[in-house]
Amino acid sequence: MSKLTDLPKRILIGRALRSDKLGETLLPKRIALPVFASDPLSSVAYAPGEVLLVLSIAGVSAYHFSPWIALAVAVLMFTVVASNRQNVRAYPSGGGDYEVTATNLGPKAGLTVASALLVDYVLTVAVSISSGIENLGSAIPFVIEHKTPMAIGAIILLTLMNLRGVKESGKLFAVPTYLFVVGVFLMILWGAFRGLILGDTMHAPTADFEIKPEHPGLAGFALVFLLLRAFSSGCAALTGVEAISNGVPAFRKPKSKNAATTLALMGLLAVTMFCGIIGLAMATNVKMAENPAVDLIRDGVPVGPGYTQDPVIAQVAEAVFGHGSFLFMILAAATALVLFLAANTAYNGFPLLGSILAQDRYLPRQLHTRGDRLAFSNGILLLAGAAIALVWIYDADSTHLIQLYIVGVFVAFTFSQIGMVRHWNRLLVDERDQAKRRHMIRSRAINAFGAFFTGLVLVVVLATKFTHGAWVALLGMVIFYGTMTAIRKHYDRVAEEIAADDAAPDDAVRPSRVHAIVLVSKLHRPTLRALAYAKLIRADHLEALSISVDPDETKALRQEWERRSIDVPLKILDSPYREVTRPVIEYVKGLRRQSPRDVISVYIPEYVVGHWYEHLLHNQSALRLKGRLLFTPGVMVTSVPYQLQSSEAAKHRARRRAEWSAPGSVRRGPVERRQKEPGRRG
Amino acid sequence: MSKLTDLPKRILIGRALRSDKLGETLLPKRIALPVFASDPLSSVAYAPGEVLLVLSIAGVSAYHFSPWIALAVAVLMFTVVASNRQNVRAYPSGGGDYEVTATNLGPKAGLTVASALLVDYVLTVAVSISSGIENLGSAIPFVIEHKTPMAIGAIILLTLMNLRGVKESGKLFAVPTYLFVVGVFLMILWGAFRGLILGDTMHAPTADFEIKPEHPGLAGFALVFLLLRAFSSGCAALTGVEAISNGVPAFRKPKSKNAATTLALMGLLAVTMFCGIIGLAMATNVKMAENPAVDLIRDGVPVGPGYTQDPVIAQVAEAVFGHGSFLFMILAAATALVLFLAANTAYNGFPLLGSILAQDRYLPRQLHTRGDRLAFSNGILLLAGAAIALVWIYDADSTHLIQLYIVGVFVAFTFSQIGMVRHWNRLLVDERDQAKRRHMIRSRAINAFGAFFTGLVLVVVLATKFTHGAWVALLGMVIFYGTMTAIRKHYDRVAEEIAADDAAPDDAVRPSRVHAIVLVSKLHRPTLRALAYAKLIRADHLEALSISVDPDETKALRQEWERRSIDVPLKILDSPYREVTRPVIEYVKGLRRQSPRDVISVYIPEYVVGHWYEHLLHNQSALRLKGRLLFTPGVMVTSVPYQLQSSEAAKHRARRRAEWSAPGSVRRGPVERRQKEPGRRG
Repeated sequence: MSKLTDLPKRILIGRALRSDKLGETLLPKRIALPVFASDPLSSVAYAPGEVLLVLSIAGVSAYHFSPWIALAVAVLMFTVVASNRQNVRAYPSGGGDYEVTATNLGPKAGLTVASALLVDYVLTVAVSISSGIENLGSAIPFVIEHKTPMAIGAIILLTLMNLRGVKESGKLFAVPTYLFVVGVFLMILWGAFRGLILGDTMHAPTADFEIKPEHPGLAGFALVFLLLRAFSSGCAALTGVEAISNGVPAFRKPKSKNAATTLALMGLLAVTMFCGIIGLAMATNVKMAENPAVDLIRDGVPVGPGYTQDPVIAQVAEAVFGHGSFLFMILAAATALVLFLAANTAYNGFPLLGSILAQDRYLPRQLHTRGDRLAFSNGILLLAGAAIALVWIYDADSTHLIQLYIVGVFVAFTFSQIGMVRHWNRLLVDERDQAKRRHMIRSRAINAFGAFFTGLVLVVVLATKFTHGAWVALLGMVIFYGTMTAIRKHYDRVAEEIAADDAAPDDAVRPSRVHAIVLVSKLHRPTLRALAYAKLIRADHLEALSISVDPDETKALRQEWERRSIDVPLKILDSPYREVTRPVIEYVKGLRRQSPRDVISVYIPEYVVGHWYEHLLHNQSALRLKGRLLFTPGVMVTSVPYQLQSSEAAKHRARRRAEWSAPGSVRRGPVERRQKEPGRRG
Repeated sequence: MSKLTDLPKRILIGRALRSDKLGETLLPKRIALPVFASDPLSSVAYAPGEVLLVLSIAGVSAYHFSPWIALAVAVLMFTVVASNRQNVRAYPSGGGDYEVTATNLGPKAGLTVASALLVDYVLTVAVSISSGIENLGSAIPFVIEHKTPMAIGAIILLTLMNLRGVKESGKLFAVPTYLFVVGVFLMILWGAFRGLILGDTMHAPTADFEIKPEHPGLAGFALVFLLLRAFSSGCAALTGVEAISNGVPAFRKPKSKNAATTLALMGLLAVTMFCGIIGLAMATNVKMAENPAVDLIRDGVPVGPGYTQDPVIAQVAEAVFGHGSFLFMILAAATALVLFLAANTAYNGFPLLGSILAQDRYLPRQLHTRGDRLAFSNGILLLAGAAIALVWIYDADSTHLIQLYIVGVFVAFTFSQIGMVRHWNRLLVDERDQAKRRHMIRSRAINAFGAFFTGLVLVVVLATKFTHGAWVALLGMVIFYGTMTAIRKHYDRVAEEIAADDAAPDDAVRPSRVHAIVLVSKLHRPTLRALAYAKLIRADHLEALSISVDPDETKALRQEWERRSIDVPLKILDSPYREVTRPVIEYVKGLRRQSPRDVISVYIPEYVVGHWYEHLLHNQSALRLKGRLLFTPGVMVTSVPYQLQSSEAAKHRARRRAEWSAPGSVRRGPVERRQKEPGRRG
């Protein structure tokens, strides 16, 4: 079966890369841009609409504030990009916000940022998919009529793709991302040409609608608060900017410089697109309302609950390119596609961050292993489950979900910028080269401004959005933080408990002899193999042990033992109640009591089978016995496997798994040692 | 917590018995009767109603056939009891229908009976609980208004009780069963007294209703078919009779005689109660309809969907004792209780039959162990899940569920009676004593008649009920049969594969040396212990192996190794991609290739923790590595456990589990060797 599915996959996305070939796949800038920028650029698909939506609360007259809000967002974007360029230069090993914060501000701050980022990944999936469905729905009404199941279906599809291990390739990202960027720019230019040169009046589908303001004539503090809320909604355009700083190792050399250039380019594109769309929305008279059913008025009556409010980008495209035109359709498709790609980036980021957190023992250790399929799958399922729950609860409504989204991003931004200021401070202590010092002081100033500005935005976001849903995101952060703290505490406690003490010997009583026991039920090949192996180890005592649950079988075993003249003594324990575990445990304990310096080595013949359901049919008693024996001190338990023919199937599966390469490898770059700095614990 | 719950439990049902004390708890007849008869006696709570229900299809005039049907059921009951008394005498070790059939008619017939019995256990739960709820509902309307959730709730409660290990005690059964029997007899006698002596006219609540016949004026073949259907519904009274023959070992000596006496007593009670209730129903003019909402007419109009048709026993009790009277209430409660007890017997029978089937390798081997809690729990959950599904699908309607019920019972009866005929035939070949021969011939005649009669009933049941639901039961049987055949085939194939051949040696290459490898990640106590243990076995080679996933940690390990001057060579394998499993597997394979006669013994230090969630945090890499190593030929894998402090918790839990005694022990009696006969494979 796998052979059949492999072929189209190989044709579509190329042969799966073995991880040891990763080094060969560094990204040139023209590919790195779409790989990392699909997430931040896709946010311009929903951010402009959010601004208009909030302003509409004060009525359509408040729309004239939108250019100022766009300007504020643009300034913020440039600030964040400039600050992040410092991160990229200072941490060429891929200094994500978590590492920068943990290194410079200590583990608690680091863990806070990590919790924020984990919540953010979940919301990236939920928001991007919901918005993608809304954009697709502007072209295909059927999609929007079944919004929630469609969105959940898309998440499940994405999850399955990632679980199966569809590898990202640069091209996969490049085509829709560039299509989207070109499409939006074409729209802006063509719109500007039609409006300014040809003097056309372009009409958005909602141009003739009126808005019933929920709070007409807002003024003073209330108006300022509303403008701040609109601004903080516009900040949705900044989500995803942090992707590049996590991905520096994937760039071609000079890594930092290339990453910084890509960041700048991305920021420029995002700001231009964001402002262009807001501008076109003003020119085409787009109307957005928070509760369109009630507050959007068409010909004097509310549009009612049957009405679907299309995203701003779709309304503008309709006005510029014409309803149902080819370019409108293409742009809607590209927008949806780039949003799905943005969701996909979370599927890579979540396990990657997980592996870094596992390295610092905040998450189960096995997540640490790169590309471990099992760990990866669990991460993916957790992410998908949480995203589906959010989409379900919020009816796949991107506007509601965005309220939860921005908190985490700005927590991460703020902490990491403060961390960078600390970083420069520390370096400045030792640096004597005046040119370098000047450079560092400049960088510090940029980061300080970044910290101040993003911190301010964080306060604004919290103040304006707390009751609108930001508390859900905070709750999520608290849960992640609590869980990770508990895990770390557990690991620390265990580490202390098992630390090898120099003074005291390892065990109270030094073991001096081995008493080996081979468990025997019948005399078949697995037992004979276990006996042969056990004989090789030259234990001080060696005996075979059988639990008699059926007198006839025991008699047959004894006869067979003699017939084969096996030179190992056979001990038989009676178990009238057909128990197996207890007599063995009690026998072993008895041996230990008699000679406490003996180590008991128990050999268990085990069947190795190929299918999970066969496991249910074999080894269950052995497994349980093993489990109990492990609790008995002074015992070691040896499995002597006997590979049944069906085990071949499992071997093949294991080989296929070994060749599996985790999605997201492209953006991660090859493994290098993580940079360790003074002050950061190893 | 467990301490707190233990006390009331101990007060209520006595201290849990250790299984090795079971021998002391043999049952006197006065306790054995309620223990085994709660299931068959409880069926008189629903069987009479089913007869009237079917007859009503031809209109109320058909009710005059009911005494004849009662007579037929009585004859059948005496036949079955008489035949089963032969079983009990011939198989004093507890010759359940499965064993009798498998021994005498071969494994396929045995497996058919086993499948039928498994389906029957599920239906015992579903039918008894539903009927219990209906009887309780006759006294407490709230219960009947929430029938399905109430029934499912009762199943869940029973399941939890059985999972926790509430022990059956004879008294627990005796009180409600005797209360029920006494109550019904009191009702019959008082009813007869009032009717015949005092000349009262007693009115059932439905006495003045009319029935709209679905097929008025049935005659000829159609009428015969209807009467047969009514008869086969009445056969529901026979369900549960087989319980005693399974339970012979639990009786006091002389076991067979006591069991046979109890059987006869039970049959007599059941028949009297069944006929008495039918008689009273006639006398009090009870009306039952298959679709009461439409076909029951009160004052000229149908009663409608809001009407609840109470069970016959409740209607009769109301007529005899008076509506809402104390005795009416007591009888309703006793009826419900005895039905719940009947359901509970399935919770004991299902795992018991499972363990016998496991012994014959039709079910996973671990079920074989007596009172194995895990196996027991899985059986219980399977039973409860299936019963809940049926109750859910059939809206806890006992009438619908009974259509599924009777098939399995009569499959088992018929096969086991045919098996008994074979049994006597075989014995007669060798028996020369004329007195014994006469006795055997008489027994054979009884069993032959039993086989004929029950076989006839089986045909009638299949013919009259197939489309009404019996096909569901047959489908269930086919599924059980198929699964068990597949499991047996698998075990046979494996047994053949692993059979020790005399000619060929165990392995192609005889192992001659041991190459021991201790896996090391850090130098802590678990590692030191593993090293100490591995040194004891005096392998031909001993080395420590560490996978380097982090150069710094590896360097620290190497230094520590030297500082402690450990006299085992430390080998370090680089793993630039942070994999652990693959380098180890490849290293081991390389060693095997170099010296194929070496056995590789891998020592893995393992943490032993106390809570399931701690497992997620430890040993995951070790577990996975172990799993992969087992597939590599010529390897044995040794776990060297290190018990962390938290493992104490698990030890306590294990101890509590060991003291647990499986419910149903009372009726099972102590373990004895199962009787083996010629013709039965061991």
